Amino acid sequence: MILGNDPILLTPGPLTTSPTTREAMLRDWGSWDGAFNQITQSLCTDLVDIVHGQKDYVCVPLQGSGTFAVEAALGTLVPRDGCVLVPNNGAYCARIVRILQRLAIACVELPLREDEPVTATALEQALAREPRITHVAQVHLETSAGLLNPLDDIAALCKRHRKGLIVDAMSSFGALPIDLRTGGIDALVSASGKCLEGVPGMGFVIVKRSVLDACEGRSPSLALDLYDQHAYLKKTAQWRFTPPTHVAAALRSALDRFVAEGGQRARGARYARNCATLIDGMHALGFRTFLRAEAQAPVIVTFHAPDDPKWNFADFYAAVREAGYVLYPGKLTQADTFRVGCIGAIDVNEMHNAVAAIGRTVERLGIAVQPRTTRVKASA
Amino acid sequence: MILGNDPILLTPGPLTTSPTTREAMLRDWGSWDGAFNQITQSLCTDLVDIVHGQKDYVCVPLQGSGTFAVEAALGTLVPRDGCVLVPNNGAYCARIVRILQRLAIACVELPLREDEPVTATALEQALAREPRITHVAQVHLETSAGLLNPLDDIAALCKRHRKGLIVDAMSSFGALPIDLRTGGIDALVSASGKCLEGVPGMGFVIVKRSVLDACEGRSPSLALDLYDQHAYLKKTAQWRFTPPTHVAAALRSALDRFVAEGGQRARGARYARNCATLIDGMHALGFRTFLRAEAQAPVIVTFHAPDDPKWNFADFYAAVREAGYVLYPGKLTQADTFRVGCIGAIDVNEMHNAVAAIGRTVERLGIAVQPRTTRVKASA
Ligand SMILES: Cc1ncc(COP(=O)(O)O)c(C=O)c1O
Ligand SMILES: Cc1ncc(COP(=O)(O)O)c(C=O)c1O
Repeated sequence: MILGNDPILLTPGPLTTSPTTREAMLRDWGSWDGAFNQITQSLCTDLVDIVHGQKDYVCVPLQGSGTFAVEAALGTLVPRDGCVLVPNNGAYCARIVRILQRLAIACVELPLREDEPVTATALEQALAREPRITHVAQVHLETSAGLLNPLDDIAALCKRHRKGLIVDAMSSFGALPIDLRTGGIDALVSASGKCLEGVPGMGFVIVKRSVLDACEGRSPSLALDLYDQHAYLKKTAQWRFTPPTHVAAALRSALDRFVAEGGQRARGARYARNCATLIDGMHALGFRTFLRAEAQAPVIVTFHAPDDPKWNFADFYAAVREAGYVLYPGKLTQADTFRVGCIGAIDVNEMHNAVAAIGRTVERLGIAVQPRTTRVKASA
Repeated sequence: MILGNDPILLTPGPLTTSPTTREAMLRDWGSWDGAFNQITQSLCTDLVDIVHGQKDYVCVPLQGSGTFAVEAALGTLVPRDGCVLVPNNGAYCARIVRILQRLAIACVELPLREDEPVTATALEQALAREPRITHVAQVHLETSAGLLNPLDDIAALCKRHRKGLIVDAMSSFGALPIDLRTGGIDALVSASGKCLEGVPGMGFVIVKRSVLDACEGRSPSLALDLYDQHAYLKKTAQWRFTPPTHVAAALRSALDRFVAEGGQRARGARYARNCATLIDGMHALGFRTFLRAEAQAPVIVTFHAPDDPKWNFADFYAAVREAGYVLYPGKLTQADTFRVGCIGAIDVNEMHNAVAAIGRTVERLGIAVQPRTTRVKASA
């Protein structure tokens, strides 16, 4: 088992998990067996608890990556003649638009800059402009830049205007506070391999029971039908199709660690310390963050690329990886930036070391860190 | 690590994997990182090799269970105005029909008994009756009863009649010979957690390049779009959405074992020995198989339930599990039967022991093994 020398993943999932979580995958499980059914059951209960949905919500686990669960939520919950408002400040918002196009569901975009959180006012104006809108699909934490959108305001607005609200909480679930008791949220989507610190391979949708109950036969897909998945689970305690047994067992172990750490509040606090350590250290090296502090979620941080002709992300990535840290490659923003995650089974020590490795790299490559000051364009 | 006392899974996936395969999941992988991209690349190459598709076929891996890959193949490859013939001799054939209904693709069923393989003659007659048919969707090994359908005959027929052929080879891939060089097959679907002895969590479709190339924008789903998945993989060496990294690493390890064992031929031979050991042992106990020997694939065996009022599958299952063997619970056939798998990282020793455990159980529960002789009805 070659473990010791693996690099630390500073990426927003897959991320560095704890060895205990990975060791949970050393067993095989019969997917029809009572022992595995108990894992599924306890996962669903715990996931609903994290966001205080015990009263009115159920958790529907789904095989596949997070996008599969997002598409399943949209395809199962929005009627074919619905119309979805999508505030767009990044790549994951844009992906929702593409999913809706495939599903042939009408969609209205609210274009925003990549560093600009949506506001309730802008949303309300968009609703007023287009009375056909039945639903809002909101990315809570736009992982493209690491941007936080104001979920509570949006939920309150949707409740007031009686619009369905489907939230992509992929990279916020477990790390940031979300409270379903306020009632404005129809469905919340996330996945195993993000802030819960499991391994990737399953998503889940936490959905209002009364909303799901009305959606029989609506999904244009069998595999992505959340109604069927939930009905079968309720009846048999089993997943409809073969579950990713080892991934589920790892998530069970990861949730035990989550609870032991002190739940969302403690997890969020650790990530906030990681993030502050990262940003402070990078500032000291001369790097500048892409987002204003108020919009910055403690999950992934986007930095402006240095304004030096010697800067080349591929070289930088390779050198930092060589030093033991995998950054998040590929830029999603239109400005020239790069991103560093601060989530996973890591703490401020890893962040200090990562910053030190970045500092050594910049020095060795002879890059002058003088950030550009490019203006950001609206994302649509 | 509680390993020693885990039961052996006598189920057709998830199944008992080798410890080496599970240990491959002890590492975390960055899904954008070169090291992981190499895993993906080598998986695809090896999977295509197993079925001799090097010349004209590509492998498209997909997140999720096998059903997700089946739906992806149908939704991506069959045009909306296509018409699919589905020879139906079990639950997985029936699932294809349900998928086509959701996709709103026309479908013609060819109803068969659950113990009756399809014949080229019956297929040819069905094609003649319905000239609208553009594709055939064929389950190679109907895992419901363990029934083998004659794939070569069907492929030859589809080639002659210029019909597209999509094969669900979920529980045959790697164990039974499949040769794409004959050219009659458009796409072959399977998954990580079956006869390749990986863990569940990803499927794959091996598809004729010329067929896939014509399917841009056809899939009504973004997540299940094989064209996009392949195009992105080709361009970036990465999966479009977060891959199940640990599942893929386990499959890489499982494929190394597959090659080391001697490939499909050796794997098929081991399973055939397992199957013969199981059937001989069960015959000696007085049990009778549901299928005729010619139709029986060496993957899972269906036995008639004993004709004794004391027989109760739940009790039997629990007692055999207690003895260390997990059977395949739930009957899929209309006759009263139960099933025992003979695949996974197990050999004749485990089969001998399992039969012994079944024998002791039957004796202890005081069940007289005198199989029923129910007639089987057509499945549609
Ligand atoms: C906000 C958000 N939505 C959706 C996704 C897509 O998830 P996946 O890559 O698991 O399909 C991600 C992935 O990071 C994400 O951050
Ligand atoms: C022939 C066949 N097709 C499809 C499937 C469905 O695969 P999954 O359960 O992984 O969705 C199975 C599962 O055993 C199968 O045996």
